[in-house]
Amino acid sequence: MKIYRARHGGFCFGVKRAIKLALEAADNSHGVCSLGPLIHNRLAVDDLMKSGIRSCDEIRGLKKNEIVIIRSHGVAPDVMQRLRSKNCQIIDATCPRVRRAQRYVEKLAGEGYHVVIVGEKDHPEVKGLLGYAGKRASIYNDNERPGKKKIGVVPQTTLNQERFNRAVTDLMPDTIEMKIYNTICQETAVRINEAVKIAKKADIMIVIGGKNSANTTRLYQICRKLRRSYHIESAGELKRSWFSAVKSVGITAGASTPKQQVDDVVRKIRRMFPRS
Amino acid sequence: MKIYRARHGGFCFGVKRAIKLALEAADNSHGVCSLGPLIHNRLAVDDLMKSGIRSCDEIRGLKKNEIVIIRSHGVAPDVMQRLRSKNCQIIDATCPRVRRAQRYVEKLAGEGYHVVIVGEKDHPEVKGLLGYAGKRASIYNDNERPGKKKIGVVPQTTLNQERFNRAVTDLMPDTIEMKIYNTICQETAVRINEAVKIAKKADIMIVIGGKNSANTTRLYQICRKLRRSYHIESAGELKRSWFSAVKSVGITAGASTPKQQVDDVVRKIRRMFPRS
Repeated sequence: MKIYRARHGGFCFGVKRAIKLALEAADNSHGVCSLGPLIHNRLAVDDLMKSGIRSCDEIRGLKKNEIVIIRSHGVAPDVMQRLRSKNCQIIDATCPRVRRAQRYVEKLAGEGYHVVIVGEKDHPEVKGLLGYAGKRASIYNDNERPGKKKIGVVPQTTLNQERFNRAVTDLMPDTIEMKIYNTICQETAVRINEAVKIAKKADIMIVIGGKNSANTTRLYQICRKLRRSYHIESAGELKRSWFSAVKSVGITAGASTPKQQVDDVVRKIRRMFPRS
Repeated sequence: MKIYRARHGGFCFGVKRAIKLALEAADNSHGVCSLGPLIHNRLAVDDLMKSGIRSCDEIRGLKKNEIVIIRSHGVAPDVMQRLRSKNCQIIDATCPRVRRAQRYVEKLAGEGYHVVIVGEKDHPEVKGLLGYAGKRASIYNDNERPGKKKIGVVPQTTLNQERFNRAVTDLMPDTIEMKIYNTICQETAVRINEAVKIAKKADIMIVIGGKNSANTTRLYQICRKLRRSYHIESAGELKRSWFSAVKSVGITAGASTPKQQVDDVVRKIRRMFPRS
């Protein structure tokens, strides 16, 4: 069995940084809490728990004065405000690229633009970005136009460039002035491009990452258009039947997938097909 | 012979206005001169000559103190300056929509953007727009990127929206900040959409207008993708052989085509097929 393993699969820069900051904080205290899972990967969250990093979805679930980690997706300014009034000690692990996008949203709103965020409407990063625009904002929806002549456009950092392009050209005819900050993170594009290259040459694709991870799911959806593909969270889900008449397998992983999980999958496939 | 005649074919708002201003000026003087042909239509230019409006391509061809018409395409500010130093009396018939685009180009350059004009590089409107950006500008070229992180984008007013969209999405990945003024004139879009509708139902298309008119040529190119099409300047060019086995004909005209020329073509076709 020939294995093509993506070099650009697994933790991205922002996630690595957030985990490092959280682990450092946990080391220096009796435990910290991240506001929402630090990464969208169930197994990795379990591991973090063992290192003293619990996760809590709601501010009201936090203790007073607790050390709180803001994860790489960032949060809206009102969330920061509420944490401060609860006297929480804040470790801000917002990805610097997301932070930059937040500042652009704030700037556009300040300059009088109606801000349109292009991204997944329930994604925490998008909710956070939206908060920086105050009331002058909406999330892009291809069925509904904002109806404003002067709009500012900012994409979710992990958005696919093609999807962003479609949104921009779709919004264009209704506007006179459009100011765009292209905050798409190139790491996502590099990961996707590499996955596409591998999917074109491998017989099947395995995409590893949380079922609740938006970027892993997107990676899987792109791969399945090119090759028979499987989205798994761990090596335990691999099935021998998938590999019938298969000579090569491509492996990639989402931005929130720990290297360990990818290693496990590769090892298991090697064990399943020891002589090939 | 069924004839579908476009309602939105012929002189656009800007051209009508320029001719009106030129005729008024000619009426009140012993003759005026337009800097370049007032419209890209040989026959109409001949008619204008009879009304005392001559055309001259170069500033050095103008007499001192002469009354000069700036045509609807507009000119660069340095051209205005040279006319003023020649003591010419200037009648500025720049289309108000082009004037607005010029102001946007000037504003973008003033705000520090590298300005990219999307349009035909030898078109007089594009040359004029470019002049408003000083040295911080280039014409969009799909083989070459401006290599700037902060760009301002303005289309030629008669550009096709699809072509503008392609340019914007093509420029996007290299930029961080892009400010777009969508100065595309809806009259052009309406004219094209109507021509497309007619081309879909007629057996052949006749597109009337100067062979040197960019917008007529574009209209013809769009029509010929859908139907057998002919670009003619006058009724005299119509050929009986085109209509063999043809039951219906669509007729449209560029923004610089006088109504008279369209009437002539319709009349001639009716005479060619009197009983059908």
